[in-house]
Amino acid sequence: MVLIRELEQKILAQGKILPGEVLQVGSFLNQQIDTMLLKQMGDEIARLYEGNNVTKVLTIEASGIAIAYAAALSMRLPLVFAKKHSSSNLSGNLLTSKVFSYTHKQSYDIMVSGDFISNEDTVLIVDDFLAKGNALAGLIEIVNQAGAELAGCAIAIEKGFQGGGDALRAKGIRVESLAIIDSMTDDSLKFRPQ
Amino acid sequence: MVLIRELEQKILAQGKILPGEVLQVGSFLNQQIDTMLLKQMGDEIARLYEGNNVTKVLTIEASGIAIAYAAALSMRLPLVFAKKHSSSNLSGNLLTSKVFSYTHKQSYDIMVSGDFISNEDTVLIVDDFLAKGNALAGLIEIVNQAGAELAGCAIAIEKGFQGGGDALRAKGIRVESLAIIDSMTDDSLKFRPQ
Repeated sequence: MVLIRELEQKILAQGKILPGEVLQVGSFLNQQIDTMLLKQMGDEIARLYEGNNVTKVLTIEASGIAIAYAAALSMRLPLVFAKKHSSSNLSGNLLTSKVFSYTHKQSYDIMVSGDFISNEDTVLIVDDFLAKGNALAGLIEIVNQAGAELAGCAIAIEKGFQGGGDALRAKGIRVESLAIIDSMTDDSLKFRPQ
Repeated sequence: MVLIRELEQKILAQGKILPGEVLQVGSFLNQQIDTMLLKQMGDEIARLYEGNNVTKVLTIEASGIAIAYAAALSMRLPLVFAKKHSSSNLSGNLLTSKVFSYTHKQSYDIMVSGDFISNEDTVLIVDDFLAKGNALAGLIEIVNQAGAELAGCAIAIEKGFQGGGDALRAKGIRVESLAIIDSMTDDSLKFRPQ
């Protein structure tokens, strides 16, 4: 796939490896967004889940929103994003879950209004990163609370060596990652062939 | 404009007015996102700023990201979003500013890596809401710190009665809001003719 190679090349050229197994891709995915690359990634996610009768795309604020929007736009579906903190802009019946953030070393609550995901939905979860899988686990819990069906997950960059993706796959959950990094040291980075 | 009427109708039909002059539009703009409506809004923002030589679109996490991405995609430009808290994913030269949140009744820092906005950029600021203009003021401060040029601001919904937009216009800053609410009570809502 031309797109996958382009994404891998971009990670190699612009990604910065920081202490604590942090991969910084702020120049195209995380703070500055390469809109045309994200559009292609959204189109690819739509292609991967074509025919799965997905009704809603679900992500988590903040850095998941752009790629999830790109996927939802390509699928012509509504996008729902989980909020990380309580907000005066949320009320009524709430679906909630707890997530431990590996980056920030603390737990936080995530929540979605029960108005936006119901037991009639088939949900595709989209996020920018997958490491230990904590954010995905929280989002899957919300899908379950809603009584909705989970079509699967789609991720821009999976840090395969942190095991979260393979643990979900072992449970029978479909996880599609556009790039999977199998090893990462201070100065090198290896992708899983796919 | 068909789009403006559609947006106003959607605000009337789905918006919920909460105490404290909060307008909740979580069903299509804020937590659940009507992707096709946002695409049209992004296209309209691109049309409004055509010929202004914009090089970057700037917004603030989290709820500004989707509409700013839609605008940036239509303009085929990179999108940059300011982060609200310090993060291990930001380092190096930072542009920072303080914003007082009317919704959360507290100040917070916003920051953008200096790698992503420079004195060679012409910046369009895009956000979902404009009330007192505090978030925009913080983003404008960041554009100034970078030495970049400000093309103007584009907003989905302006609460005109809170004065932030008109105060910025009085300073000569171009502010384009797709819908402007001139008055809002518990059970009614009036739009500014435009």
